[in-house]
Amino acid sequence: MSNFARKNCIFYDHMTTFLPQNDTICAPATAQGGAIAIVRISGPQSIAAADALFSRPLAEAPSHKSLFGYIGDLDEVLLTVFRAPHSYTGEDSVEIACHGSAYIVAEVLRLLQEQGCRMAGPGEFTQRAFLNGRMDLTQAEAVADLIASTNAATHRLAMSQMRGGITRVLGEMREQLLTLTSLLELELDFSDHEDLEFADRSQLTDITHRLLDHVGRLADSFRAGQAIKDGIPVAIIGAPNVGKSTLLNQLLQEDRAIVSDIQGTTRDVIEDTIILGGHTFRFIDTAGIRHTDDTVERLGIERSMQAAERAQIIILLTEPGTPYPTLDVRDDQIVIRITNKTDDFQALHGIGLSDLQDRLIEEAAQLTASDSDLIVTNARHHAALCAARESLERVNSALALGISGDLIAQDLREALFHLAEITGGEITSDEVLGNIFSHFCIGK
Amino acid sequence: MSNFARKNCIFYDHMTTFLPQNDTICAPATAQGGAIAIVRISGPQSIAAADALFSRPLAEAPSHKSLFGYIGDLDEVLLTVFRAPHSYTGEDSVEIACHGSAYIVAEVLRLLQEQGCRMAGPGEFTQRAFLNGRMDLTQAEAVADLIASTNAATHRLAMSQMRGGITRVLGEMREQLLTLTSLLELELDFSDHEDLEFADRSQLTDITHRLLDHVGRLADSFRAGQAIKDGIPVAIIGAPNVGKSTLLNQLLQEDRAIVSDIQGTTRDVIEDTIILGGHTFRFIDTAGIRHTDDTVERLGIERSMQAAERAQIIILLTEPGTPYPTLDVRDDQIVIRITNKTDDFQALHGIGLSDLQDRLIEEAAQLTASDSDLIVTNARHHAALCAARESLERVNSALALGISGDLIAQDLREALFHLAEITGGEITSDEVLGNIFSHFCIGK
Repeated sequence: MSNFARKNCIFYDHMTTFLPQNDTICAPATAQGGAIAIVRISGPQSIAAADALFSRPLAEAPSHKSLFGYIGDLDEVLLTVFRAPHSYTGEDSVEIACHGSAYIVAEVLRLLQEQGCRMAGPGEFTQRAFLNGRMDLTQAEAVADLIASTNAATHRLAMSQMRGGITRVLGEMREQLLTLTSLLELELDFSDHEDLEFADRSQLTDITHRLLDHVGRLADSFRAGQAIKDGIPVAIIGAPNVGKSTLLNQLLQEDRAIVSDIQGTTRDVIEDTIILGGHTFRFIDTAGIRHTDDTVERLGIERSMQAAERAQIIILLTEPGTPYPTLDVRDDQIVIRITNKTDDFQALHGIGLSDLQDRLIEEAAQLTASDSDLIVTNARHHAALCAARESLERVNSALALGISGDLIAQDLREALFHLAEITGGEITSDEVLGNIFSHFCIGK
Repeated sequence: MSNFARKNCIFYDHMTTFLPQNDTICAPATAQGGAIAIVRISGPQSIAAADALFSRPLAEAPSHKSLFGYIGDLDEVLLTVFRAPHSYTGEDSVEIACHGSAYIVAEVLRLLQEQGCRMAGPGEFTQRAFLNGRMDLTQAEAVADLIASTNAATHRLAMSQMRGGITRVLGEMREQLLTLTSLLELELDFSDHEDLEFADRSQLTDITHRLLDHVGRLADSFRAGQAIKDGIPVAIIGAPNVGKSTLLNQLLQEDRAIVSDIQGTTRDVIEDTIILGGHTFRFIDTAGIRHTDDTVERLGIERSMQAAERAQIIILLTEPGTPYPTLDVRDDQIVIRITNKTDDFQALHGIGLSDLQDRLIEEAAQLTASDSDLIVTNARHHAALCAARESLERVNSALALGISGDLIAQDLREALFHLAEITGGEITSDEVLGNIFSHFCIGK
């Protein structure tokens, strides 16, 4: 890397390095309600803390060996020591597999806290893994996505990211940006020799276009990524008793919402997920949209309007002879209108149930399509890619206007910064890290 | 043991021995929703099946060693082999700790089934542990109780049982029964010598009385055991809008039920648990008990009456000037009457909130009290103890009537059988076992 390039890789001054902490954390790593629960401990005191609780000595215990023993009168457990750096976090760690009782888990955690451990915050184990260089930020974020994955599509996206998919692509982009920087540097170094054309501006423009195209496609893949990862939000909007719950139930093919002939039965916003043609739809059943004096009902209507705002697809439902509800619809929202036969909920007039399903699948195919090989699912990555695209667009304009290389440097530096921001680079702000890991579950 | 005693230990003919099965079972051992999930495999093919999935060879893998590796493109996992007999079930077993994604867990189980494993039934791992002699039936049952324990009292009862508490007590009773049997045998052997009194009838009666007292106290402890283990069911019954939800919420000190001034808001039977003075109360909030044409409301009322039937304590709530709801109350049910001030939900007329709490604690102290050191929490044990008590009462009557020893033998045999039934003895019917383990969670 040239000096110029190196110089341009220095990031903003207000960023501070987020240093690993020296305390020992503990948390349940499994959900409540199973046969087995795992309590996870990580940090320099983890083995000593577990040793104080466990019926067998742990000071000399080998790494990765499951030991059967007791925690006082509390439980029979399997305990495994993971010695640094051969653990998830890279620190000394202990995992205690106990019976999956809420009481036992709470007691184990209480005893560990008596030994000086503190309860881990959300994602703090993974944060430590990141800080100890076990993974980059996109891989850490992929861990949360992997845990949340419920189908093959979301799992594939998360796994690709955890295995460094986006890291590699960003690495390639970074290389291209550095090439651009080097070429500009050459131009600067030889700027006195007016007859020399070391840095061919058309070559610079070419690289910039390719980069813009690549960054743009990646940024645009986020819409598809969101639809795949979170499912497509669908709101069913209509007057009370027009058959919204019945329609939802027919789509769900099970009785999750109370279906009743009483006006305003559906008072809470119920979210149900269905998978059609491999696409996930989050159905938001809503209260009627008429104005009412019923306080519970009115709450429901407000939530219904909020649901419509959050929806990607809005199903407007009405009866024959009654106009469709009026609703402000955004350009990016898809509206499907259905007239329901009042005398027969089994059939939907105008559009049949299977027609509706086909239509939903068709819209979903559009919403989840992307012309990028790699699909971005993370809002933070998307924001950084958009920022990098803006910087590159300024570079592109500057090249077109024949502006000199040293003035282009700042935009290149910004583009590099935004891409580095995604993987966590060498320096990341506390705020960014705090934000990322606060969305993890406890114990990961 | 004498021949007579041995002869009398032979159990009913229709019982068959429940033999360990030779297939390999798999199941998730953790609840859905955590950072980590564990999939458990047990049976002769468990290591081979896991080997087919895992990135590292397992044929020679040491027991109890956590191995980091991959399951194809599915996940990074920690895998531990437990070689027979040093496992929970006593069979070859494998535990796979993967990321806690519903998709990943389902895929791991699918792949294992491709390798010839079958999904385990509820409690099947513990059932195998029992069949392989790793624990007796009461200890196996205690595992389920331990997992379900949510407070110190239920945990202590389960842990005492898992550590063989009831087994020891039953062993002592069995010894006394065998002494009784031996004394009767002596009497029979020397029955020709009419002047000899080897088996002093008063001694036999003494032992029988002691046994009856012991079995009786243990059987009677079940009422307390139930109240401790399941909590005390409390129903709040009153007309619509009399303040049932508000009373419940004041007791819960949080807003779990929708409190509204609309008649018939509380449509579903909501069960909430509170702990007062160390006692657990399961509060059952109910719809109003008036007759109504509102279909949803009517459903709620039916459930309300069912709730009242299930309740140990019934709180009848009314307004000043309105009579209390009429309700058929059983002798063993406790009724607390409260008149609610209509203008101020913060205060309850007639009986204040803290008065009500004190009254509940007082009733709970009665309901959870037992004069047995060991408390029975299991309905199956209770039924067997009651049956044993009946047999012993027949023995006692026969002794009082001077009936000869050989006629008493059948009742003694039955008492022995019923006690042996509790721990599973040497022979237990398939039906009994199936019943016990069907109440376990999957994966245990």
